Amino acid sequence: MGGDRAPDMVADGAEIARQKFAAARFLFVGDEARLRPLLDRHPDLARVSELRHTTEVVTNDAKPSAALRGGRQSSMRLAINAVQAGEAHAVISAGNTGALMAMAKLVLKTAPGIDRPAIAGFFPTMRGSSVMLDLGANVECDARNLVQFAIMGEVFARTVLGLARPTIGLLNVGSEDQKGHEELRTASSVLRTNGLNLAFHGFVEGSDIAAGTTDVIVTDGFTGNIAIKTAEGTSRLFSSFLRQAFSSSPRAKLGYVLAKPALDGFRQRIDPRRYNGAILLGLNGIAVKSHGGTDAIGFANALGVAVDMLANGITARIQEELQHLGGDPDAAPNPRTAAV
Amino acid sequence: MGGDRAPDMVADGAEIARQKFAAARFLFVGDEARLRPLLDRHPDLARVSELRHTTEVVTNDAKPSAALRGGRQSSMRLAINAVQAGEAHAVISAGNTGALMAMAKLVLKTAPGIDRPAIAGFFPTMRGSSVMLDLGANVECDARNLVQFAIMGEVFARTVLGLARPTIGLLNVGSEDQKGHEELRTASSVLRTNGLNLAFHGFVEGSDIAAGTTDVIVTDGFTGNIAIKTAEGTSRLFSSFLRQAFSSSPRAKLGYVLAKPALDGFRQRIDPRRYNGAILLGLNGIAVKSHGGTDAIGFANALGVAVDMLANGITARIQEELQHLGGDPDAAPNPRTAAV
Repeated sequence: MGGDRAPDMVADGAEIARQKFAAARFLFVGDEARLRPLLDRHPDLARVSELRHTTEVVTNDAKPSAALRGGRQSSMRLAINAVQAGEAHAVISAGNTGALMAMAKLVLKTAPGIDRPAIAGFFPTMRGSSVMLDLGANVECDARNLVQFAIMGEVFARTVLGLARPTIGLLNVGSEDQKGHEELRTASSVLRTNGLNLAFHGFVEGSDIAAGTTDVIVTDGFTGNIAIKTAEGTSRLFSSFLRQAFSSSPRAKLGYVLAKPALDGFRQRIDPRRYNGAILLGLNGIAVKSHGGTDAIGFANALGVAVDMLANGITARIQEELQHLGGDPDAAPNPRTAAV
Repeated sequence: MGGDRAPDMVADGAEIARQKFAAARFLFVGDEARLRPLLDRHPDLARVSELRHTTEVVTNDAKPSAALRGGRQSSMRLAINAVQAGEAHAVISAGNTGALMAMAKLVLKTAPGIDRPAIAGFFPTMRGSSVMLDLGANVECDARNLVQFAIMGEVFARTVLGLARPTIGLLNVGSEDQKGHEELRTASSVLRTNGLNLAFHGFVEGSDIAAGTTDVIVTDGFTGNIAIKTAEGTSRLFSSFLRQAFSSSPRAKLGYVLAKPALDGFRQRIDPRRYNGAILLGLNGIAVKSHGGTDAIGFANALGVAVDMLANGITARIQEELQHLGGDPDAAPNPRTAAV
């Protein structure tokens, strides 16, 4: 029930995903009075779908703590419960991110060896696609969290993006060793020295994100959230200026018409719907957060991310990689107590 | 002597600025053997210029501490000394940012009422231009620093950008009161409640930077540095994809030719040279950092920023505003000891 155009875009997105993933089955959780007519519109989808009725929803402005307490019969909570009960392989929501993370942590539990789950996202770069985490689940992170994020991000890039040996960068204000916060320097030395066998590049800067200097960018949830939203805002500004330029004269308009097929390709390359689907990594189960403002195409892509994660057994693979970190809790010292 | 194309672009940039600012006079500090021929190329500039010879330079990879110790006869240091001695009104450098800030702090001293100077920059938005600070001088900031940055940024936006009543936003991961780090929440309550008479908007997110939601964006130097570089990287990615689209077919190329005048206007709007000139705010004197990679046009713009600051008496105006903060040191409590 979450998202600006829900539940319509959820059902329409599921129909697109159904055509792409023949084996997929769907469990819709929400208000039957609103969902049933949508499924009636898509009889092929209805045949592979189940509907679980509830009228409760988590609103977008609900605090995570309030959603945990008061939202036990919400569509979001029941969808997560279904994953925990083995009735669904993954939960996909376009609703309240904080509530989704809080409920998923409570119900699915954090995976063994992970202190805190993170939100990962992927986006276009000069060299292809990169994945960045954390995008906002943990405002304060210590070195140990960052090292775990690096491992989870690497597995994600390997399994879902299909990269053979993804490179990893730690987001910082400079590439020199002495730069930035203490926890970054500690995380860097752990990633560099222990037996993780990661392709750790070292520190990267904000400009390296879009440059695609590394396949994985690791950062705390505060910085990651600012960075991803700054990139989105810049991209919107650029698009807006470009639109204004093309409509500024008859000649520019004609130029636009001629260049339109090429510009459509350009637009597709940067289309946020292609990169829709923030992944909650580090849980005992698969949870994907779709952008709230997306449409059916974007929601279908978020569903596709969940299918990819499932097909590649990402949860088990992260566990394998964590073994390499070893049981030594001092491997990644905890220099600063983190606050939730 | 600093910058990728220095000293040529410095002399060429000064010539552009000379034509714009009839009363300007220039003091070039650096290697006479290289600077003299450049001035000979511009006889009108040479007439209003003085040359101070030194062969020492601060390299781009020098640590600030090393530059302070070993760079006493460097061109950067002598230029700053000239401001301190009253021989120049402002120093403009395209060299090592960290060294420039460290030397400027040592020589010019931090202004009364300011705990730490900050680096401010301005850039295009949907609504015009905004200024953001700190862009990297202070990796860790407390609430008191952030409040001072807000005051300095507001005066800058008022005097140099010419805005009557600039609005101020604190960069955070959400607009709700309980979001983000402790120091942000404290700074927000100080900016909201005391007698500063600022148009404080509240928290803003990364996407608000390019949207131009507020005229001034206040943040710590770590986050600000990541944000500005992420925006630069995204802008480069966008430009690169656009170039590729326009050269992807003969038809797209023809469209480009027709739309070129409009696209040139678009390019000018986002031209980083227009927004060249990061300002070191909070010193007893005017210091401007030009982007190292800029050309003569960009360097001339950095010179223009210094002229604007001077013409508007920004240093005195910041002092006036600080009076409103009052002498109460508890007005902006210091919840977290900051590390340099």
